[in-house]
Amino acid sequence: MEVFTSVSGLRKFLSQQFLQQKSIGLVPTMGALHQGHLALVEAAAAQNDIAVTSIFVNPTQFNNVEDLAKYPRTLEADLELLRVAGCHAVFAPSTEEMYPAQPALKFDFGPIETIMEGASRPGHFNGVGIVVSKLFHMVKPHRAYFGQKDLQQVAVVKRMVADLSFDLEIVVFPTVREADGLAMSSRNRRLSPAERLIAPHIYQILTATRDRIQQGETVGNAKYAALQAFSDIPELILDYIEIVDTATLQNIPEPGEAGTSAICVAVQLGPVRLIDNLIF
Amino acid sequence: MEVFTSVSGLRKFLSQQFLQQKSIGLVPTMGALHQGHLALVEAAAAQNDIAVTSIFVNPTQFNNVEDLAKYPRTLEADLELLRVAGCHAVFAPSTEEMYPAQPALKFDFGPIETIMEGASRPGHFNGVGIVVSKLFHMVKPHRAYFGQKDLQQVAVVKRMVADLSFDLEIVVFPTVREADGLAMSSRNRRLSPAERLIAPHIYQILTATRDRIQQGETVGNAKYAALQAFSDIPELILDYIEIVDTATLQNIPEPGEAGTSAICVAVQLGPVRLIDNLIF
Repeated sequence: MEVFTSVSGLRKFLSQQFLQQKSIGLVPTMGALHQGHLALVEAAAAQNDIAVTSIFVNPTQFNNVEDLAKYPRTLEADLELLRVAGCHAVFAPSTEEMYPAQPALKFDFGPIETIMEGASRPGHFNGVGIVVSKLFHMVKPHRAYFGQKDLQQVAVVKRMVADLSFDLEIVVFPTVREADGLAMSSRNRRLSPAERLIAPHIYQILTATRDRIQQGETVGNAKYAALQAFSDIPELILDYIEIVDTATLQNIPEPGEAGTSAICVAVQLGPVRLIDNLIF
Repeated sequence: MEVFTSVSGLRKFLSQQFLQQKSIGLVPTMGALHQGHLALVEAAAAQNDIAVTSIFVNPTQFNNVEDLAKYPRTLEADLELLRVAGCHAVFAPSTEEMYPAQPALKFDFGPIETIMEGASRPGHFNGVGIVVSKLFHMVKPHRAYFGQKDLQQVAVVKRMVADLSFDLEIVVFPTVREADGLAMSSRNRRLSPAERLIAPHIYQILTATRDRIQQGETVGNAKYAALQAFSDIPELILDYIEIVDTATLQNIPEPGEAGTSAICVAVQLGPVRLIDNLIF
């Protein structure tokens, strides 16, 4: 497995692969890898000749200084996990390598970014759009892999790929969960043991809400019951719960065809902000 | 010379070129070609294995409906000129082919786009940024060619290439002028014979302004003299004249090193808005 910290080194390696007509799969990550990431890397290695994983804690997508400072950084462990998962090349640049100068260009995704994560984290999706564009131009992948846990990020990146005519395929994989249902997240490491025991309630409320809707309750009533359920667990400070169309992310009055609706949630639990969603 | 109207046809042709390790030069145009364009095409053909010219009157960069409607469209004549200039492939898509859906994403270039053309044509550089990004992703050129006449466009595109880490080189060629100094422009065709006789005054005022500064007059005084000169020709309705740094496009109190300052001007002449600039 090759490890690159410079864009020029990465591009030199990749140009050799292009000459040999190798297909490239990219998994963009911020490191602190868990099974959710590794499932993406394994898929990238299975579906392409070369799997590239980027590890870069992108400062421009953080609106919270403490969240950025405390985001877990575990490069040596990450590299070992990537080796085992069959990754061929890792790109782990410094902030200076990614941003030799402060970008002047800003992305505005319109309505899709003024809700949920966009509303709670101003500038977040601009940061995501810029860094993902840069990584796409550095790696030139045939396929790029994202986790469904970041549902709104997936919608924003798909929008960007369509609007700018990027020549690549976005592949989305289901959220990987702990045995008790908690969605895997690098931020879970920052939960105390007591908080870790409370965290699975998020998934329980998501599934209960989905079940209510599938049993015929209105979206409005199911959402109200979910709000009640969150308020019964004082440690879970709800940021939002929204029941939306998976493509437009706009609120829906009733569920659409199977697989086109999602319940999306964000909560603060102790020092950590967690998000999760369930598609139905 | 190959002519493509579909993205898929273009990509199929280009992927064969990439397999043969051919270098690609792209000249993005809106058609109605003149010697300024053809100098870019000739350079693209000389410096690359394959020269691609795009012809697309991009509606999203027009803020004036009449300007868009009356923009000259001369495809057959353009194709003949391109054949003679040594162009290998032309991409002339319909609006529907370029924009299967209305883009949601908007580009904001910050201070560089709120002045001069950006101030006079709101949304213009967003339209330019989106369409140039799309063309870059469709053609994947090694080099892309632009004319210095669109000085602010060059600055915006260079900014975008740096901010998004596009893997290509921007090549800029000097403005090509008629014998009487008028900068070549597709819009010149819309001037009446009387207006065409007045138009060269723009270049005369630009050169007189540059000469004043190079002879020691202050930038402020030279600009004042230029304003006077324009007001003496009532047919030339001045939009702006700015003396700026070529990289930042911000006003300068005094000229910098040779080649880093520019006098930029936009005027309305009859039905047509003309721009020009002089670097010194």
